[in-house]
Amino acid sequence: MRESAYPMLEFDVALDRVLEHVPVLPGVERRFDEAQGWVLAEEICATEPLPPFPASTVDGFAVVAADGTAPRRLVGEQFAGHSIDLEITPGQAARITTGAPMPAGADAVMMVEWSHEEGGRVAFTRPVQPGDFIRPIGSDIASGEAVLLPGSRLGPTEIGLLAALGISKVQVHRRPVVGVMSTGDELVEPGVAPQSGQIRDSNRFSLIAALREAGMEPLDLGIVPDSWEALQAIIARGLARCDALLTSGGVSMGERDLVKPLLEQGGTIHFGRVNMKPGKPVTFATLEGKPFFALPGNPVSSLVSFEVLVRPALCKMSGLPAAAWQRPRFFAVLEQEVRHSPERPEFQRAHLRFAREVIYASTTGNQASSRLLSMLGANALLFLTGGRGDFAAGESVEALFLGG
Amino acid sequence: MRESAYPMLEFDVALDRVLEHVPVLPGVERRFDEAQGWVLAEEICATEPLPPFPASTVDGFAVVAADGTAPRRLVGEQFAGHSIDLEITPGQAARITTGAPMPAGADAVMMVEWSHEEGGRVAFTRPVQPGDFIRPIGSDIASGEAVLLPGSRLGPTEIGLLAALGISKVQVHRRPVVGVMSTGDELVEPGVAPQSGQIRDSNRFSLIAALREAGMEPLDLGIVPDSWEALQAIIARGLARCDALLTSGGVSMGERDLVKPLLEQGGTIHFGRVNMKPGKPVTFATLEGKPFFALPGNPVSSLVSFEVLVRPALCKMSGLPAAAWQRPRFFAVLEQEVRHSPERPEFQRAHLRFAREVIYASTTGNQASSRLLSMLGANALLFLTGGRGDFAAGESVEALFLGG
Repeated sequence: MRESAYPMLEFDVALDRVLEHVPVLPGVERRFDEAQGWVLAEEICATEPLPPFPASTVDGFAVVAADGTAPRRLVGEQFAGHSIDLEITPGQAARITTGAPMPAGADAVMMVEWSHEEGGRVAFTRPVQPGDFIRPIGSDIASGEAVLLPGSRLGPTEIGLLAALGISKVQVHRRPVVGVMSTGDELVEPGVAPQSGQIRDSNRFSLIAALREAGMEPLDLGIVPDSWEALQAIIARGLARCDALLTSGGVSMGERDLVKPLLEQGGTIHFGRVNMKPGKPVTFATLEGKPFFALPGNPVSSLVSFEVLVRPALCKMSGLPAAAWQRPRFFAVLEQEVRHSPERPEFQRAHLRFAREVIYASTTGNQASSRLLSMLGANALLFLTGGRGDFAAGESVEALFLGG
Repeated sequence: MRESAYPMLEFDVALDRVLEHVPVLPGVERRFDEAQGWVLAEEICATEPLPPFPASTVDGFAVVAADGTAPRRLVGEQFAGHSIDLEITPGQAARITTGAPMPAGADAVMMVEWSHEEGGRVAFTRPVQPGDFIRPIGSDIASGEAVLLPGSRLGPTEIGLLAALGISKVQVHRRPVVGVMSTGDELVEPGVAPQSGQIRDSNRFSLIAALREAGMEPLDLGIVPDSWEALQAIIARGLARCDALLTSGGVSMGERDLVKPLLEQGGTIHFGRVNMKPGKPVTFATLEGKPFFALPGNPVSSLVSFEVLVRPALCKMSGLPAAAWQRPRFFAVLEQEVRHSPERPEFQRAHLRFAREVIYASTTGNQASSRLLSMLGANALLFLTGGRGDFAAGESVEALFLGG
């Protein structure tokens, strides 16, 4: 009886080992509007207050609140973007638009909806208090305030804040460039008609798309035939250009599986088997200091092991804080009975349905690891623990929310 | 007392009106590996079965099951990708790798872990049943099976399926090109030092980032000064190149607000006020048959109204099915008391925390609509209904999950 040379790690142990061995990439400078999805490598402090002047929050009339509802004489207008040396004294008012600076002497704004204008005078239906409808200097952001912390991923809000503060260049962590190759003599490109015994490569395209979706930069390294020299050459090319490498196929126990022997020779294999289904033969190594993930060749196995072991590693490399390395996890209630073998913990593909306070999960049918259709419509992976059999409808199980 | 000329619509009515007036964009042909994030405009059927031949699911030995555990004579090997005219008879076995085609005559595979090889013969520690460890022809996908439906957004799984089936070109809906401009004489570009009364434009950058995040194609139309001619010229340029237009600023009741008058003159305004906070003056029109969204100028108001009214419209335009136009909605339990005025329904920015079966929500502090910091770290919008005041800790409120 032959056995794999690699001890079987529990999933959590394997994930910890991956996270322990991947580096956080160094910082580079980028323009703020070309850094969407990148992660800040510095703290951003406001160098000036926002708003930079006391501003009206409505369209209306700048007034002295103490005048109450008494009609005022209109002495000018203050439009946003057109600053003038206007000054208001008791009994006077100036037309003002949203965002415009308050004229000197005015201490409140009357909304235009409460006003009645006639012959150079304006009357109001109600009084205001000093400060009403004024945004004081620095009320949104104080000068010196730490606005964005290292580890922030730059999305619409962060980019808007950088624009508002006039910060046009930022230090961000380099985004991982990840080389992707598929291994196996049986693989042909999708545009080629397979001959007897051949199949089209699909994993490379799935993994490249998954990398893009995760905000990483894929590099397509093509199909590698089952030859030691070819594999060495493509890996050398990948190591020269990438921060991490991904293969799929070539890691089970067949005679032609060359990936593990090559990793053993040139690098350090941190694990070669994980107690999970699908994805058992997933292998993690470092080669010339760079993370190398050898994923199984079955389409579902490669995507699931990418999701649960590779994606968190790349999130760490890209500078995200630990809390953001993994997908949101919560418990969902099973809508139907779920078949599960006690043999190994299993990630089943499922669709979540949100119904008021309760989240329900249904699996996507036949969970064969060759059946890519089981990933279709899945917005979650259910983690079914080992050591017990089928789960009943109504049981609560842990779900990784994939979004969408 | 002056009043807005536009009736105040309830949010749901406004959203329905938007969705009613935006078109689904027509189909275009794209390469399957350049269509990530695009939405299928056709049904994809398998033109061949997957796998195309009966294949081994493990590394091991192709055998005749009826031979039981008796030692067999090794007569050859069948590697994935190397098809040969091998035939097995009772008493014989052939070495086989995962994914390789079954040799004629063999009806099961023995796992390598159960085998013991010696002197051209192989013995096994247990028997197998006919069909064991074989994927029959078409067991993953049957020939003719409808694999992807119109309205499917192409992600890693869908792209993998297209690759596996050899479908290199697909019909997808054109992705909306959305022109974005900011209006207002007070605005300067982020790289320019603001003079007295001026502020830097941030909305345009936030909205462009939000469009990218939603999978749309933004076109930056710049800052438009408060001039009728300038606004007309930029809108004409936008209409010539875009499927929809977005402005921010220039829709409240100030004298210089030119967007609504221009839309009234050249197009049809479907609504000009919505009973929501922030975002009350949000305006939706069609101009030369194209959707035009005039968002308020406050940074939070523009991003929130984009999220709840514009994003669903663009999702419809891009070909997604109705169920995918809006973010996932569910109920979350408030961790703290939340201040809320009964005056208007409100979208408060919040952070969700998933704790086993329960989802908790905390708001992000001061909810002033000028305070972009209130969007920071928000992964949800809480919908607080009007007509009632503060919400207590422990109350359950509806949340739109923004992801992340």
